[in-house]
This record gives sequence, C-alpha cells and structure tokens, in this order.
Amino acid sequence: MEESIKQIKTFKLLNNRILQEGVCLDGGVLKVDVFINHQIDPYLMKQVSIEFIKRFADLKINKILTVEASGIAPAVMLGYLMELPVVFAKKRKPSTMSDMYQTVVHSFTKNEDSALVVSKDYLTEKDHVLFVDDFLAFGNAGCGIVDLCRQAGATVEGMGFIIEKEFQHGREALKRAGVTRIESLAIVESLEGNRIKFKGI
Amino acid sequence: MEESIKQIKTFKLLNNRILQEGVCLDGGVLKVDVFINHQIDPYLMKQVSIEFIKRFADLKINKILTVEASGIAPAVMLGYLMELPVVFAKKRKPSTMSDMYQTVVHSFTKNEDSALVVSKDYLTEKDHVLFVDDFLAFGNAGCGIVDLCRQAGATVEGMGFIIEKEFQHGREALKRAGVTRIESLAIVESLEGNRIKFKGI
Repeated sequence: MEESIKQIKTFKLLNNRILQEGVCLDGGVLKVDVFINHQIDPYLMKQVSIEFIKRFADLKINKILTVEASGIAPAVMLGYLMELPVVFAKKRKPSTMSDMYQTVVHSFTKNEDSALVVSKDYLTEKDHVLFVDDFLAFGNAGCGIVDLCRQAGATVEGMGFIIEKEFQHGREALKRAGVTRIESLAIVESLEGNRIKFKGI
Repeated sequence: MEESIKQIKTFKLLNNRILQEGVCLDGGVLKVDVFINHQIDPYLMKQVSIEFIKRFADLKINKILTVEASGIAPAVMLGYLMELPVVFAKKRKPSTMSDMYQTVVHSFTKNEDSALVVSKDYLTEKDHVLFVDDFLAFGNAGCGIVDLCRQAGATVEGMGFIIEKEFQHGREALKRAGVTRIESLAIVESLEGNRIKFKGI
C-alpha cells in the first residue's frame, strides 16, 4: 500500500512538472527544456532515478547505458544511487576511438540518420544492461542500443524512460526488438490540439 | 589542517585514476574514456563535485553551466549537491529553439568549428554562473561560455575543470577573457613521450 502510494506520488510530481513547464510544438514534439533537455533539475533526476530503482528492483544489473546528451543526467544519477558504472553511446565516432560497435539510428525530431557507437572496452558479453533515456518516441535509439548489445553479446535487462510518447509507438518497436521490460515514468497518450493528455488520467 | 589533508587526498585519488587508467595519444591527447568521456564513474563525479564545492566555497552561485556531452556528468552531480539548476550549452542549434545566444568555438581535438548555443530562457542577467567541464585544454569552450554570458548579461563567477592540460595554455586564454577564478583538480604539465607529468609532482 505504502509502495503504491509512493509510486503515484512520483508520477504526479513528474506529470505536474510536464503539465506546468512542458511546451507542445507541432509535429508531436513535447519540449521539456526547463528540466531535462537544456536546463536540468538534478533533484528531479534523483526522484526519477529512485522510481527506476523501484521498478527494476528485481533485475540484476551491472551497468547503466544511455545515449548522449540528454540521457546522461538521469543515467549518472541512477548510476550514482545504484553504485554502477554508466556508459553513454556516442552519436558519432570519436577520432580517438578505434575498436567499437556501431549502428545507425534515425532521429525523427532532427530528421536525420546518425551513428550510435560504443567502444568494445565498455560493452561486453559480461554486461547486464539497464538502458535509460529521456524520451521514448519511435524507439529508434532503443532499437540501436539493442543492436549494439547484440553485437557485444551483452544482455539488455530493461529499458527505462522518463517520458513516453505512446502515440509514436516506440514501445511496440522495442518489444519487436526483443526488449521484455520497459518502464516509462510519464506516458503521454496524445498531444492533439497541443494539449498534453496522460495515459489513464 | 583537516581541510588541506582532504584536499591532497582528493588530488591523489584523481591523479592516481588518471595515471592508472588514462591513455596518452599523439598530439597532446589524454584519453580518459574509462571514467569521464565514455564510461562515467558516478562516485568519482561526486568526489570531484565536493572538491569544486570546497574550492568555490566563497562564491555566490545560482546556476551551474556546462557544455554537452562530457561536462553534463560532473555538472549534474555538482548541481545536485549544491541544490542548483544545471544548464548545458548545446553544440548545435536545436530545431525547437528560437530565441538564443550563440557563439562559435574551435575544437582542436576534433579540428572543427562548432556552434555553442544557450536559450535566452535559461541564461539571464540575474545569473551568477559556475562553469564546469571535463577538460581545460586551449580554453575555447570556456571563452565561448564567457561570450554567451556576456551576451546574456550573466556573471561568470568561476570555472572548474576536472583535468587541465597546462601545456595547451587554456588558463591564460580564460584570464585574457576576464575569468578571475579558475580551478583545475588535476593539472597535467606535460604529456611528452606519452608520459603523464602532473604539475608539482
């Protein structure tokens, strides 16, 4: 009982922040530059991380994986609280990186393809990965991560997102890619008419 | 006395990590992908943040500023411990950003110019900024931040770097740009012969 009340509280905290400070733009874009994507509220990142820890409490994880740049803040806070290393996949090959896994993902927001690379040094068959990111939209970054982990022989134990835009169907794409545990802390059912409608509310 | 011992310990911790896990590459590159630039050690980020808090203890700061992507981890941990918002400058203009300050900085590592942008919503004349970043090399990102803050009317109170490559003279560039308080937690005097030599050791 206590547990479920806390969970609802955390939802409310995040939902309220999104309602109060999120901005809807045309094309299904939800802009949360106030606390995630440009300015970051570190306290909210801690609340988000605690919620992820609860939801994935039954999993054995040894590494947090994310994608630069907006995923780094929640990933670092989660890694700090769980005492785990964090690895962020890069969107282009650094000149100093030689031995890596790579894949290509399409960003609908930016309308372009980009690489997703991770060094072979930091993703191996020993890794049981929890992937976290700011948004689940079409699921392209997540599917890219599945591909990188497959190349490395690493196991994707779960994926956690701060905000899911359900109407862009990323969850289905991730399920098709074999991800069995997906948790999103705020699920936006629709942005029609530039109004934020949360699932189940 | 207690204070100075702690400070030396923190130095040692970071210096030892750099010596043990850093990799020297040609062209004055020090690769610390193991704990900062690709894999992140969140516990080290906390140690680094505590050291920044001590060194800038006399300043009145209301915002932590950094640059994507590698600056985000220490900035978020520092913002969390200091209970301050974090803003990360972006290296290109997002399609969803309209009203912004921008400047151009040259990256010697990547050998290219890139934009540095920050929304007018998150940097104003009310801000007293502590800028933190992973590396101080030639000082170009720092000088770009000075320019963005000048445009916004914000005050740069100080700049903190995890690692300074002294032989690339970024500190002088920042001083010329008017930055009066610069703190680096590990100062590399030379990487000659691909050997890491710390200043004063």
